[in-house]
Amino acid sequence: MSVTAARGFRAAGVAAGIKSGGGRDVALVVNDGPRDAAAGVFTANRVQAAPVRYSREVLADGALRAVVLNSGGANACTGPRGYQDTLATAERAAGRLGVDGADVAVCSTGLIGVPLPMDRLLPGVDEAVAGLSPDGGQDAARAVMTTDTVPKTASVTRDGWTVGGMAKGAGMLAPGLATMLAVLTTDADVDAAALDRALREATRLTFDRVDSDGCMSTNDTVLLLASGAAGTAADPACFAEAVREVCADLAAQLVADAEGASKEIHVEVVGAASEDDAVEVGRSVARNNLLKCAVHGEDPNWGRVLSAVGTTSAAFEPDRLSVAINDVWVCRDGSVGEDRALVDMTGRTVHVTVDLAAGKDSAVIRTNDLTADYVHENSEYSS
Amino acid sequence: MSVTAARGFRAAGVAAGIKSGGGRDVALVVNDGPRDAAAGVFTANRVQAAPVRYSREVLADGALRAVVLNSGGANACTGPRGYQDTLATAERAAGRLGVDGADVAVCSTGLIGVPLPMDRLLPGVDEAVAGLSPDGGQDAARAVMTTDTVPKTASVTRDGWTVGGMAKGAGMLAPGLATMLAVLTTDADVDAAALDRALREATRLTFDRVDSDGCMSTNDTVLLLASGAAGTAADPACFAEAVREVCADLAAQLVADAEGASKEIHVEVVGAASEDDAVEVGRSVARNNLLKCAVHGEDPNWGRVLSAVGTTSAAFEPDRLSVAINDVWVCRDGSVGEDRALVDMTGRTVHVTVDLAAGKDSAVIRTNDLTADYVHENSEYSS
Repeated sequence: MSVTAARGFRAAGVAAGIKSGGGRDVALVVNDGPRDAAAGVFTANRVQAAPVRYSREVLADGALRAVVLNSGGANACTGPRGYQDTLATAERAAGRLGVDGADVAVCSTGLIGVPLPMDRLLPGVDEAVAGLSPDGGQDAARAVMTTDTVPKTASVTRDGWTVGGMAKGAGMLAPGLATMLAVLTTDADVDAAALDRALREATRLTFDRVDSDGCMSTNDTVLLLASGAAGTAADPACFAEAVREVCADLAAQLVADAEGASKEIHVEVVGAASEDDAVEVGRSVARNNLLKCAVHGEDPNWGRVLSAVGTTSAAFEPDRLSVAINDVWVCRDGSVGEDRALVDMTGRTVHVTVDLAAGKDSAVIRTNDLTADYVHENSEYSS
Repeated sequence: MSVTAARGFRAAGVAAGIKSGGGRDVALVVNDGPRDAAAGVFTANRVQAAPVRYSREVLADGALRAVVLNSGGANACTGPRGYQDTLATAERAAGRLGVDGADVAVCSTGLIGVPLPMDRLLPGVDEAVAGLSPDGGQDAARAVMTTDTVPKTASVTRDGWTVGGMAKGAGMLAPGLATMLAVLTTDADVDAAALDRALREATRLTFDRVDSDGCMSTNDTVLLLASGAAGTAADPACFAEAVREVCADLAAQLVADAEGASKEIHVEVVGAASEDDAVEVGRSVARNNLLKCAVHGEDPNWGRVLSAVGTTSAAFEPDRLSVAINDVWVCRDGSVGEDRALVDMTGRTVHVTVDLAAGKDSAVIRTNDLTADYVHENSEYSS
């Protein structure tokens, strides 16, 4: 599991005193090669944290030797000083590892608008380098946690090679990714272009279809590093499938651990004229606070689903829309369907199916219910 | 105040047993003329309730003699039967009033997807007709309440003429209006075209800039009826201003009574390259659940404001964005500004100012905080 499941990687997670309340808060993932191919996907938010801007630049050549991650501070909206801090972090790790600073990516997560305590972070980087281990994946996964209650790791092994990964993120999950950091590693012999293709397709279908609370972070980052240590060239389709599987596994873990959630909601849109339509409708339903409250209250309130569908520009006729909740078609052809009393919503997972009756495309968006615990947690996060 | 402040109007509000828990649930507003000019603005939701579709049709000729409104059921997503029920309601009122059925509009509010109990509604219409009074405006305002805790009415009197109105709506407030019913009346001598112009401009700047929870209703309707009973032709600009004032007053009352809200949030966007940009950014900030939770917790979390701004397509440079919370510029030029400890958020109203530094346009969007009470209220609304 985690980032050290694949050969050729070492990792560490240490407590540097950045995060209030203690605990591990600096993670390091190192690719010992022989390859150093890498790809990345970043937030679509136009307000981007310093580490996002920096990591995007160093990834331009498709190569990375290491990734430093910290929790306890997002280093977003911190001005020129923030960028200097990211640069100093990368260079400290590079110096200790004996690699080029331009081959080290940096990821940060935590409160926006607060400078990082560099007097703690830099010694933390030193300690992480000293603690690197082929078994360090779990520690690294713990060190990136913020409001997460459990570390998230996953791995898939195929014909002689492995894809593994870790992720963090419990709030702010949203389209264009979440605050959400994920690092995936593989020992398959794959070049940067193939990594990029596999990662973009995988994130489009997994992390990008998680929408916990409609809020998009300034720091979202997903990285994929290949060491080639297995000495095996993976079949491209098989490799892409493995990357997607690990991403889907991690994405499901993010939703399961979303802030304050008591229910997981799978919004499946079928009968769409295009995949874009299906995603637009799914997101609109997944973001509807009233529906999320209704699911929390185990109330099969399909009217709120239709209200949300009606705000989209997708192709549909209002009097042909149908909605099922946990497989009971409570709305058929835009009007009252089966008896809502038949719907059992007592389980943790609730399936909402929307049939647009406009085509053959479909998509699933994953979200969670809106609870008083979410409000409490996010009323008290920074102060 | 209310719809009977202007001469030439009578109104009533009666309890017909539609709303669970009793209380007035059928309202009637009648225009006794001499004019019967009218204009209306309806939800932008593509899923529209039967009364919205019907009222839009009967308004096409710019004339209305009466409006029937009911709470206790939205008559939305109720199929052909729902439309028949709306038609029967209009015709019942028309028959009792001795007017044409095509001169009666209908508005409904309540749960979606449940047919109206016509065996109660129609006798309620009879009772309302019997109870019509030039002082009935308050009863009518009470009869349209759902989760509202207080009736909402307003009026403005100018040179010999008056504009008055009532509104309901506490949840589901959103762009393209809310579930939100509002009826405005005037005794000024104004034709349908001028009413339409004045109403569209007023709603664009008031109701349409209220965004309580980002959810858009299937039933939103704002009607404006003119009786001409004052015998005075109002100056067009002065009349438009009066309509805007009444709409602004009612819109402010809606936000003040939003479900579960403990804070009112005014999101003012300045320095925008266009008014559309200002509105887009204002809405994005106003819909950000994380920010709404932060305001609830009296936490001046400006990073959440910047995150929301960053998801828009408005013209701005991230490193020129500034944010003030209650006039303290906690973020300047995309980075840390004045000390956040200077911000006092203990009052009920919180002003969030976003300076895009991209032009001279501005807009204000009004919303409220996200609270545990909102979750409780909306987890239990229908079941």
